[in-house]
Amino acid sequence: MTRLLIDCDTGIDDTLAILTAVFDDNTELVGVGAVWGNIDVRQAARNSDYVLQLAGADEVPVALGAAGPLNGDDAVFAAHVHGADGLGGAAVLDHRPALSGETAVQQMIRLSHEFAGELEIAAIGPLTNLAEALSVDPSIVERIRRVTVMGGAALVPGNITAAAEANIWHDPEAAALVFDASWPVTMVGLDVTMRTAITEDHHRRLSEGGPVGRYCASILGHYFDFYTGVRGRRAAANHDALAVGIAIGQVEVMQSATVPVVIDTTVGPDRGRTVADLRGMWADRWDVDGARHTVVLATEPGFDDRMIERLASA
Amino acid sequence: MTRLLIDCDTGIDDTLAILTAVFDDNTELVGVGAVWGNIDVRQAARNSDYVLQLAGADEVPVALGAAGPLNGDDAVFAAHVHGADGLGGAAVLDHRPALSGETAVQQMIRLSHEFAGELEIAAIGPLTNLAEALSVDPSIVERIRRVTVMGGAALVPGNITAAAEANIWHDPEAAALVFDASWPVTMVGLDVTMRTAITEDHHRRLSEGGPVGRYCASILGHYFDFYTGVRGRRAAANHDALAVGIAIGQVEVMQSATVPVVIDTTVGPDRGRTVADLRGMWADRWDVDGARHTVVLATEPGFDDRMIERLASA
Repeated sequence: MTRLLIDCDTGIDDTLAILTAVFDDNTELVGVGAVWGNIDVRQAARNSDYVLQLAGADEVPVALGAAGPLNGDDAVFAAHVHGADGLGGAAVLDHRPALSGETAVQQMIRLSHEFAGELEIAAIGPLTNLAEALSVDPSIVERIRRVTVMGGAALVPGNITAAAEANIWHDPEAAALVFDASWPVTMVGLDVTMRTAITEDHHRRLSEGGPVGRYCASILGHYFDFYTGVRGRRAAANHDALAVGIAIGQVEVMQSATVPVVIDTTVGPDRGRTVADLRGMWADRWDVDGARHTVVLATEPGFDDRMIERLASA
Repeated sequence: MTRLLIDCDTGIDDTLAILTAVFDDNTELVGVGAVWGNIDVRQAARNSDYVLQLAGADEVPVALGAAGPLNGDDAVFAAHVHGADGLGGAAVLDHRPALSGETAVQQMIRLSHEFAGELEIAAIGPLTNLAEALSVDPSIVERIRRVTVMGGAALVPGNITAAAEANIWHDPEAAALVFDASWPVTMVGLDVTMRTAITEDHHRRLSEGGPVGRYCASILGHYFDFYTGVRGRRAAANHDALAVGIAIGQVEVMQSATVPVVIDTTVGPDRGRTVADLRGMWADRWDVDGARHTVVLATEPGFDDRMIERLASA
């Protein structure tokens, strides 16, 4: 049984990620931390709590986290991708979330003790909450089994800039703390998430499904519109659910490289880039001795289909 | 007939690049500019002049250029790759080059007038000389047909750092001036040059060839030693000759993208990186309207073989 904490800025694909964990028979979702990113942190918490209730998982605590980046800059959201409500206009705005009395950082530290040595963290938004937890209690690194980050790009372009993926770019200073800490980090970046696709056919299957499936269908329209510009067709990337799928062992990693990854925190064209030292690729030596960052480079096909099938039936 | 100026830090693969131009029937090599980089600029000039004489092309003028980077930092050479003499210990150190009375910058500007509108520049070392020419006479951009740069890495790691290719990393400030200027730039980076290979079989064929072939064979040993560490086998990258081959039309480009490329001049992990905006790749829209930087992403196979055959027979 995987004990999983998801830290997220819910978000369309974050919603699918939460549901992927909820409906996994071998996973106990022990908490959701909300963070700013796609939208503001309160809306992220509202969207998270709503989908957990819809899925019958209202026992999962939702805790509020950071409202903006570590360096005090103003938060920049991604309404053009996820809509102003995070769910492409389909969010239930008058839903009053039953928030935990803890902050996301307190919850993360508590869970790290409660499930010491076995807690998995899937961080699928900006890494502000994780960075703050590290600074409050650096010993947390010893109690976390692995941090799986949806973020970064190793051998492909970024998305929010030519070089940077959005989650890392939103808070590079936080990402640097998380990648520099001594816990094992798996980076599920655009190298693999841009090779996933939620299609119009998936959308149809969700809309013909149960309440959860229909809810998923309702939030996808805006996301498709955005991805039409990115991909030239109505096929959305399944970023966050892929990362959760990898964290809980639902998705097999076909190729990865365990190498040093450094976050670029300069103020320049590469700000927020994940600098993965993949120079060994030319000798087919993908791993670097002693490295702690596993960069996922290929995953088994079929996850998107399986996920949609599971969600449509719920 | 292509009128070609090569600006180079000769260098093992620079030597092969010069010879590729000299023995091309449709190319007139109208000058060689020497620049610091693999080695110091005087040794670069000596090596260039020596190989031109050996190849019977002593009419090609060789001019001395910059001895270090634009920002005044100390020059850092690459003796571990090319040897202290630039040619893996095989340079003829007592060769006294017949240098032009001009500097490399003066020569570049003169040639740009002499062959206005048709001069091609292949820049296969750090871009210091080109940057200085731009600052001396900004109008040079109007008289150059194209600048082909061996340098950078778009969708692959760097070589001198995880992010940066050596020619760009040696002088990022110069590279930024060259990429920001309004002439068309073709970037022949590690994306394609690391997919070339000079092999032991090539080495054998050169060593059984004529004087030029045997000279090429004599300089390759050290380069093979270095590339064994990079590639896990004795197969050296043919960086510079590929760039010249593309500049003079000997090598067909199979895939390229014309996109904005920005040079990272920050002092951080991405210093010297070529930031190519290739986000259109996901929609199979490789080009960006109005862009001036053509990033070569695939070349026809067979160039290495053809080059070796030509040089072995000379």
